[in-house]
Amino acid sequence: MIYLDNAATTVPDEGAVNAALKYLQPYGCLNPSSLYRAGFSAHKEIEEARRDLLSHIAPQGGYELIFTATGSEADNQAVFSCARRGNFVTTAGEHAAVYQSAKELEKRGIEVRFAPLNADGSVNADAPCGLVDEKTPLVSVIHVNNETGAVNDVAALSARVKKINASAVFHSDGVQAFGKIPFVLSGGIDLYTVSAHKIGGVRGAAALVRRKGAKLSAYIYGGGQESGLRSGTENTFAIKQFEFAAQKKFASLQEDFSRIRGYNRQMRQGLDASIYEVLSSENASPYILSVSAKGMRGEVLLHMLDDAGLMVGTGSACSSKSRFSRVMLACGLDEKRADGVLRISFAATTKEEEVSEAVAILNRTAAALRERTKYSWKK
Amino acid sequence: MIYLDNAATTVPDEGAVNAALKYLQPYGCLNPSSLYRAGFSAHKEIEEARRDLLSHIAPQGGYELIFTATGSEADNQAVFSCARRGNFVTTAGEHAAVYQSAKELEKRGIEVRFAPLNADGSVNADAPCGLVDEKTPLVSVIHVNNETGAVNDVAALSARVKKINASAVFHSDGVQAFGKIPFVLSGGIDLYTVSAHKIGGVRGAAALVRRKGAKLSAYIYGGGQESGLRSGTENTFAIKQFEFAAQKKFASLQEDFSRIRGYNRQMRQGLDASIYEVLSSENASPYILSVSAKGMRGEVLLHMLDDAGLMVGTGSACSSKSRFSRVMLACGLDEKRADGVLRISFAATTKEEEVSEAVAILNRTAAALRERTKYSWKK
Repeated sequence: MIYLDNAATTVPDEGAVNAALKYLQPYGCLNPSSLYRAGFSAHKEIEEARRDLLSHIAPQGGYELIFTATGSEADNQAVFSCARRGNFVTTAGEHAAVYQSAKELEKRGIEVRFAPLNADGSVNADAPCGLVDEKTPLVSVIHVNNETGAVNDVAALSARVKKINASAVFHSDGVQAFGKIPFVLSGGIDLYTVSAHKIGGVRGAAALVRRKGAKLSAYIYGGGQESGLRSGTENTFAIKQFEFAAQKKFASLQEDFSRIRGYNRQMRQGLDASIYEVLSSENASPYILSVSAKGMRGEVLLHMLDDAGLMVGTGSACSSKSRFSRVMLACGLDEKRADGVLRISFAATTKEEEVSEAVAILNRTAAALRERTKYSWKK
Repeated sequence: MIYLDNAATTVPDEGAVNAALKYLQPYGCLNPSSLYRAGFSAHKEIEEARRDLLSHIAPQGGYELIFTATGSEADNQAVFSCARRGNFVTTAGEHAAVYQSAKELEKRGIEVRFAPLNADGSVNADAPCGLVDEKTPLVSVIHVNNETGAVNDVAALSARVKKINASAVFHSDGVQAFGKIPFVLSGGIDLYTVSAHKIGGVRGAAALVRRKGAKLSAYIYGGGQESGLRSGTENTFAIKQFEFAAQKKFASLQEDFSRIRGYNRQMRQGLDASIYEVLSSENASPYILSVSAKGMRGEVLLHMLDDAGLMVGTGSACSSKSRFSRVMLACGLDEKRADGVLRISFAATTKEEEVSEAVAILNRTAAALRERTKYSWKK
């Protein structure tokens, strides 16, 4: 089987898992809040992971990091902490964790202003900036769109937002960017969400990176862990495995980026243009390639690809209730094109021969589906 | 080293970890929301874990289970979902995850009514019931107190609450009860928090068990996992390991309970009564034995015990900011007795010879500390 749905989850890095297994054993597993030495050791391990992860994303300092269990939790904490009144400015291209939180805020009577998307899923800086005013407590713009890979220049965007309203908090969901595209925190970015399981980490560890002093309140109250900002016994195993996986990923980030860009090009060039329309722009993150097989149902194609030995995503894996991806519609796709969307996503572990083979499977399978449904295809 | 701080965390069950490792590997690790077969398999594994865990705590049916990352998250979801207006009735003996959530509600202008504790940390049914009225949306009473082991009869209590206000939601934090004391959900219990890492599970899995139809809203919004009640990619590894650890724990629950009760008695009888006052009642969960070494500082004693090869807890491991445990003070302890509190807590894996050795270490070490601080001891 070839696995090209790495934007949904990556396979945990085996070396990082093995190195972290001791945190599931005596006495590495003990409660980091406990006062005996083994507890204090666990506490120190977590502080080391915190520093290590921060060194990748904020090497110049000025930021701190709050561990959460998931990227969704970190996004929710950012949104619900900061957008308690006034108007919340965000985009139509957010991950569901921000988008559905915004929808919940609307139900609670908070005004939400959604900036529209370009055809590739990115946002023009003018769009959100034009919505910000003195009553905006929070702006949230996704860094790398999880469906199209479109990259938003969140450093520049946040700096512009701060010029309009210096007290607005700027949050970005960086889950599809962290460890994948060259980037360090700068500009006016106050809060930044990262997650382990998209870069070879296990589930159970994610974080909200926070500019020191930026407004943030706890979202889960209790024992006061994470400086009172996120209570709950720390998941030492997942946190350390995240640290180790990120070390590995960041050590080869540039090299991986170039190689994956090659795969992405190879895929774009190899796909049968009479079937597949490429939706992701040339400037998108190379890790994500979104295409549409016009007139076909993405889900049907996905199952046929699965049978043929290739796993890929559709536009809307997470929120499977609606047939069409909300983001794809916001990109301006009509329903026919939105119906045929596939998301192909790479990992650092993806091999060149897998890409060639995947291209062949994608072309062969879609041709077979077209043949099978010739009548409806002609219409 | 002897480890008797199992109420803080247990060592993950090795067999359950090994059995779950495949969920960190291809293709067991894939995203349960994805549509290809490996994703659907992961989804089925999670549904199996859900049914299996429910079979232990609600064998008669009528309940469903929402996976969360931590017990604290489940507690927060219960409190913040249900207590949005009126008065929230709870006790002075709650775990910090409920207690600090209640404090946060107070800041938001919600009235919170705290029922007082008995000397052993339990609550008289009359106390919370007397506080409930027609404006009470939520009552939360801990099942087994995490500091003293006191057991509250939450089935009877919840039934009484429902007679006063049928629409009040009854929540109980069952983290120190689940898999330890014989219990199945009944009465008027609507929401019940359980956690993996207190019964040989790893961190990253916990759950809110919900009576079907009981009021509850999402706390983390996003992709719509867990029937829309808890978004975020499911932590398959932690959930399956939780399932396996719980299977093992429940299979020997009654046997473990009896054996641990023996250890608890052995400890009570063996401790030097001129030094240690036992705080936990005879009816408490045998897994937790709280004692006070009057006139000594628990923290100092804890470090000496650690040096001597024994790890135990203090009254307030989690919320280490204040010197005295809030719960111990609510039990009526003066500061001198509250200062000397140690929490000794057992696991199913605890061995008899560890208990005998621990008793010897506890007596020897406290005697040495008394000797060392004779002057202040006499005062």
